Amino acid sequence: MVSWNNLDTLNSFKELNRLGKVSVKEALSGEAGAKRAKEYCVPMACGLTYNYAAKAVDDVILKGLAALADEAMLSDKFKELYNGAVINTGEKRLVLHQLTRGQLGDDVIADGVNKRDFYVGQQKKIAEFAKKVHDGSIANAAGEKFTTVVQIGIGGSDLGPRAIYLALENWAKATGNFKLEAKFISNVDPDDAVAVLKSIDVSRSLFVLVSKSGTTLETLTNESFVKDALKKAGVDPSKHMIAVTSETSPLAKSSDYLAAFFMDDYIGGRFSSCSAVGGAILSLAFGPDVFAQFLEGAAEEDKLAACSDPLKNPAMLDALIGVYERNVLSYDCTAVLPYSQALSRFPAHLQQADMESNGKSVNRFGEPVGYKTGPVIFGEPGTNGQHSFYQLLHQGTDIIPLQFIGFKNSQTGVDVDIQGSTSQQKLCANVAAQIVAFACGKDDENNNKKFDGNRPSSIITGDKLTPAAMGALLSHFENKIMFQGFLWNVNSFDQEGVQLGKVLAKKVLAHETEGALKVFSDMLDI
Amino acid sequence: MVSWNNLDTLNSFKELNRLGKVSVKEALSGEAGAKRAKEYCVPMACGLTYNYAAKAVDDVILKGLAALADEAMLSDKFKELYNGAVINTGEKRLVLHQLTRGQLGDDVIADGVNKRDFYVGQQKKIAEFAKKVHDGSIANAAGEKFTTVVQIGIGGSDLGPRAIYLALENWAKATGNFKLEAKFISNVDPDDAVAVLKSIDVSRSLFVLVSKSGTTLETLTNESFVKDALKKAGVDPSKHMIAVTSETSPLAKSSDYLAAFFMDDYIGGRFSSCSAVGGAILSLAFGPDVFAQFLEGAAEEDKLAACSDPLKNPAMLDALIGVYERNVLSYDCTAVLPYSQALSRFPAHLQQADMESNGKSVNRFGEPVGYKTGPVIFGEPGTNGQHSFYQLLHQGTDIIPLQFIGFKNSQTGVDVDIQGSTSQQKLCANVAAQIVAFACGKDDENNNKKFDGNRPSSIITGDKLTPAAMGALLSHFENKIMFQGFLWNVNSFDQEGVQLGKVLAKKVLAHETEGALKVFSDMLDI
Repeated sequence: MVSWNNLDTLNSFKELNRLGKVSVKEALSGEAGAKRAKEYCVPMACGLTYNYAAKAVDDVILKGLAALADEAMLSDKFKELYNGAVINTGEKRLVLHQLTRGQLGDDVIADGVNKRDFYVGQQKKIAEFAKKVHDGSIANAAGEKFTTVVQIGIGGSDLGPRAIYLALENWAKATGNFKLEAKFISNVDPDDAVAVLKSIDVSRSLFVLVSKSGTTLETLTNESFVKDALKKAGVDPSKHMIAVTSETSPLAKSSDYLAAFFMDDYIGGRFSSCSAVGGAILSLAFGPDVFAQFLEGAAEEDKLAACSDPLKNPAMLDALIGVYERNVLSYDCTAVLPYSQALSRFPAHLQQADMESNGKSVNRFGEPVGYKTGPVIFGEPGTNGQHSFYQLLHQGTDIIPLQFIGFKNSQTGVDVDIQGSTSQQKLCANVAAQIVAFACGKDDENNNKKFDGNRPSSIITGDKLTPAAMGALLSHFENKIMFQGFLWNVNSFDQEGVQLGKVLAKKVLAHETEGALKVFSDMLDI
Repeated sequence: MVSWNNLDTLNSFKELNRLGKVSVKEALSGEAGAKRAKEYCVPMACGLTYNYAAKAVDDVILKGLAALADEAMLSDKFKELYNGAVINTGEKRLVLHQLTRGQLGDDVIADGVNKRDFYVGQQKKIAEFAKKVHDGSIANAAGEKFTTVVQIGIGGSDLGPRAIYLALENWAKATGNFKLEAKFISNVDPDDAVAVLKSIDVSRSLFVLVSKSGTTLETLTNESFVKDALKKAGVDPSKHMIAVTSETSPLAKSSDYLAAFFMDDYIGGRFSSCSAVGGAILSLAFGPDVFAQFLEGAAEEDKLAACSDPLKNPAMLDALIGVYERNVLSYDCTAVLPYSQALSRFPAHLQQADMESNGKSVNRFGEPVGYKTGPVIFGEPGTNGQHSFYQLLHQGTDIIPLQFIGFKNSQTGVDVDIQGSTSQQKLCANVAAQIVAFACGKDDENNNKKFDGNRPSSIITGDKLTPAAMGALLSHFENKIMFQGFLWNVNSFDQEGVQLGKVLAKKVLAHETEGALKVFSDMLDI
């Protein structure tokens, strides 16, 4: 049996606070720095590597982190999770998103079914459906093939699938795997739906309505928008719309949909990209084989996460270093900086996955914790960020740990040679340069041109951003978040903090307000 | 003469630290809260209003902030700036972006010309050019009208113009002001240029190359990409490309461009949206009249910023409250949360404008400061953010001040009524609800469902997001950043922190590396 204890009760954590701090600047300088840059890395799946040479750790601190992993029973807790324990104690639910892409442990039986079989079954149903759409045996009333797929969903039903679609769109076009263009309607702002609907031929579009409960107000509102548009175009909505929902939702057996694919309560929205939530739109956009490659990459990375040695488990090590930065070094934010335009929305997805999971002030028993938990996560792709907020990262008064991502090769392979180097080489040169600039800084007589350095970063490198590599990346961060939740002793799988706003918004719409809420409502003409 | 002093040397700042703190929860509760919600607001230009009722201030603290504004000579400093003083001391430059949209004070003569005349002259040249493009008198070789305009630029030449284009695209389509579709190529990642070029008909596209110096490596590299694509399509690049640059740059008089429009050294990239940098693409996309409305909105808001009473000067008040939160209450981040999908990239632009301006550790004399300066800025549109990172904002261990933005009406006016309310009403109900949820919280026996409240926010409300309102919004934040820079006594108009990365990247590309930098370069196959 594992025991769940607050971070600040662990002896190994107290010991970590007593260890000498590491100067990243000194550590990464000279020949010792070069040696360290080569050695401080862990292989990931699909040829990726996690390099932590520019983090404020040394062999002593790494040993301390391993002791922390051990005392916090990180491996045992993950084992409990993938073997089907009720890890989401608040909602009394299992946590099974890893099971959508592979089976790490025992059979998990819940609600009378083998859950791995259930997820694989949904994937097969989706694959069959997608193939029929691609070969035209499912088509519009005029017998024309669908050209566009539109996801209607918000939060976890939007950010992850959208980030992954954008990550693989150019790869798919370059490799002949591009089947349908995907669009996304998420915001309840009517201008969002109007703009997307104007940009497509609705008569050739298939809509994927995603809502686990079947009651998400934003999503049902946008469904109405779409149905109106379809009717105005003389199209039968029920022939253009599929549902991704839970088997018990009102959408599950409705004749309003061409088909319904199922998820369940054991996969939270922000962890649902590998379930039918991501599976339907990604299989339709790129084909089920590409989605299968993506799942395989994630499954490979999950296997590494099951290893008890943090030096062989990149997600666990990343999590431990992050907690060290947050709770020993007192850094409050983390920036995610992919040097890949394809990953333009991946930071926004991680912002959700991380901040919604670990932005908690009570432990899993509902007791307030006396230490900082999840940090603010933000980021934009490099090199764009360099010309934007990097000024603060280099010379601001706060130190912000950085997570770089970079690939040797571009997705399309098209390039130009200017001033002796390709664009891809320039991109990679920039990320290599930034790691060292942040770590080592530069002295100058003019303080305004001086860089203190000592700003820690890690980098995940890879050959190319493929579906499998994308799956491995996603798994890495999902598992990092899980391990950090274990360390902070919070329940990473509920989100009670989103409820109050919903309740008050309903009151406003029912005109049941008073005091300041009434004033703000009047101000906005509601 | 104004005097420039560090924040922590000011008596009014020391006094602010001694004042009693305000509980936002108490202040916004009951009838007193309703009264406050009505009264704690300042009119802005174009019908906008800045409401700070949910900020941790009261009349005593507001008086203290007014004393701080006075002692820091905020108004006098702004006056020096708009009258043409060398406010950017690091680079020994005037700071004139406000002059692009109006003249608040004396004639500003620099380099032998009246700068207001210079900026207006460029606007007129752009307007004439844009009209010729729109009426077809400037067209492609086949005599066909241009349909698309593509900005090639990075950082300030990208984020601001892109955010404003997205903000007004649907408005323009709904009001018959949509002339050309705009696209943006920014990243040196070759996949960025490839994807944009694949999505357009290059033979009907006009490209705007934006680089003040004419030497920005990313931008020149992307120019080559575009030229290659044009040549492959059998098109003469010089007939499809205009330049926005400084008069002294190598691009200024080159025959490679159909026309060149000028900016100068007195407008930093992140403040250049109102100069030719934003003017060319926005005038081409929406027509010069729309761009003129945008400038007028900004000019109106600038006039308010020139008022010495912070209670009548929303930008100054916003700046003062922000510094109070950063340096008295010790909050480290600010989230920008527009309830408008059209403003989807406005937080990214503000992230640049703010973090690049005030992410500094030395004062304007190059002396290290002993207090925190610019915070981390991040944000996404609501309601999307509610289903993402709001969990941490509500229940996380850090308090993050929030900046909401909301409009009574949508841009397109198209809407559906579901469950008794329109989408626009739902959108507005949500932002009103969030202000009160964050401020007042909710008690619960279950700590996991408890909301402590006391999380401060402000909101800018308006009737509709029009070009003028967008101009006013931009001006508000630009001036807020300027006032905060004055308070922190930093130079908000240089960006030395971006230099080191550039220098090291060049070394990598020249293979002049050693130590860790060589290892990282090898790792990425450069």
